[in-house]
Amino acid sequence: MAREIYVVGIGPGAEDMMTVQALEVLDKCDVIIGYSVYLELLGDRYKDKEKLQTPMKQEIRRCEMCFEEAQKDKRVAMICSGDAGVYGMAAPMYEINKRYPDCELVIVPGVTAALSGAAVLGAPINHDFVVISLSDLLTPWELIEKRLAAAAMGDFAIVLYNPSSIKRADYLMKACDILLSNGCKEDRACGYVVNIGREGTTSKCLTLGELRNTKVNMFTTVFIGNSKSYIFNNKLVTRRGYEI
Amino acid sequence: MAREIYVVGIGPGAEDMMTVQALEVLDKCDVIIGYSVYLELLGDRYKDKEKLQTPMKQEIRRCEMCFEEAQKDKRVAMICSGDAGVYGMAAPMYEINKRYPDCELVIVPGVTAALSGAAVLGAPINHDFVVISLSDLLTPWELIEKRLAAAAMGDFAIVLYNPSSIKRADYLMKACDILLSNGCKEDRACGYVVNIGREGTTSKCLTLGELRNTKVNMFTTVFIGNSKSYIFNNKLVTRRGYEI
Repeated sequence: MAREIYVVGIGPGAEDMMTVQALEVLDKCDVIIGYSVYLELLGDRYKDKEKLQTPMKQEIRRCEMCFEEAQKDKRVAMICSGDAGVYGMAAPMYEINKRYPDCELVIVPGVTAALSGAAVLGAPINHDFVVISLSDLLTPWELIEKRLAAAAMGDFAIVLYNPSSIKRADYLMKACDILLSNGCKEDRACGYVVNIGREGTTSKCLTLGELRNTKVNMFTTVFIGNSKSYIFNNKLVTRRGYEI
Repeated sequence: MAREIYVVGIGPGAEDMMTVQALEVLDKCDVIIGYSVYLELLGDRYKDKEKLQTPMKQEIRRCEMCFEEAQKDKRVAMICSGDAGVYGMAAPMYEINKRYPDCELVIVPGVTAALSGAAVLGAPINHDFVVISLSDLLTPWELIEKRLAAAAMGDFAIVLYNPSSIKRADYLMKACDILLSNGCKEDRACGYVVNIGREGTTSKCLTLGELRNTKVNMFTTVFIGNSKSYIFNNKLVTRRGYEI
């Protein structure tokens, strides 16, 4: 029988935003592997479990550790923040899986920031939407630009992950400029959420013109409405289409 | 103090794919309102709760019922399958909320089919992606066509909701043709999942050319990879970008 390795999305951070399945998988496993920040998010419930971590940018080593631990007959869970398969470790885990054909991956989905952030802001992605990461660590910036332009041309609601970092302080501004030069107007309804599902959650609704001149940090998820979205009572709403 | 009404995403169906928060909200509420099929999905846990339903296409009446029940000092939860804010009732609930300013909505996110279906197929949306509904009940078909073309031009991974119904038997074929005429090749890696998180879940990986000639039912979610996606061991994987 194949050794099962679980790749688990733990949601934004708060334990009550995990699925029952995710909690049960972690309850039953012998070792939890993840980025140190995510292991800390798990809190007391798993304080007696064996945990293994690697720092940021050592994601591939982290994946390899999962398979190495599974070879020792341990039940292994790799945790990802949000969902396991949205900029998560599911895809690289399948790559490493090719070297370990006796292992089988089980992906446990979780609430990604597009959903948890949307719930804080109101209903910003209640119609067709795109999710784009502004991080050019693994993606050429030209491709990110092309996708932003396509998102504007398709009049999608847009969710931006990784809108900023110390090295990429002006990327959100550049992204807004691409949207503005591809048909989005300055008064387009937008919003952002900081620290979703963690202590100190804050959110703000604003126009695309204002968003362009806003500095956000790396714990921020940005939402840009489609041309029919609106802000009412400090909530960002993208119509589903009903005439009301 | 404002009367709180909860709009709850219950995930694909299986109780263990609900978040702890969603379960707790439903535990505490006095009345659960929803589409009859979703009320049935809840199963035994809430069998003694008061439940109110409306048939399909009476979504707005269902929203109004939530506010009417809240006026009777009941704690009300409106349930949506998947996530509350992805083609869910969050947006129409905010519309009706304008008539009931003493009520405040609390959106409880859930695992939408893009995530739960992705987990079954492998890692099909592990990079930038779009979600498009093929239902033209509330959206002009021309806008759907425009968005499909934009998704192809941006080389996004694509998730299609509502790919078919009795009246729209050929919409998936039409959608594939739009993708094919906007740069997607016939050998593009694709997949679909039927009955996600419910009894009889099935999935299949196939090419875009094969998908074009496949009949799917209304309980199907379709995934189209980006130009770098691949099928391996019957899993659909969209690279995150690491060189491995």
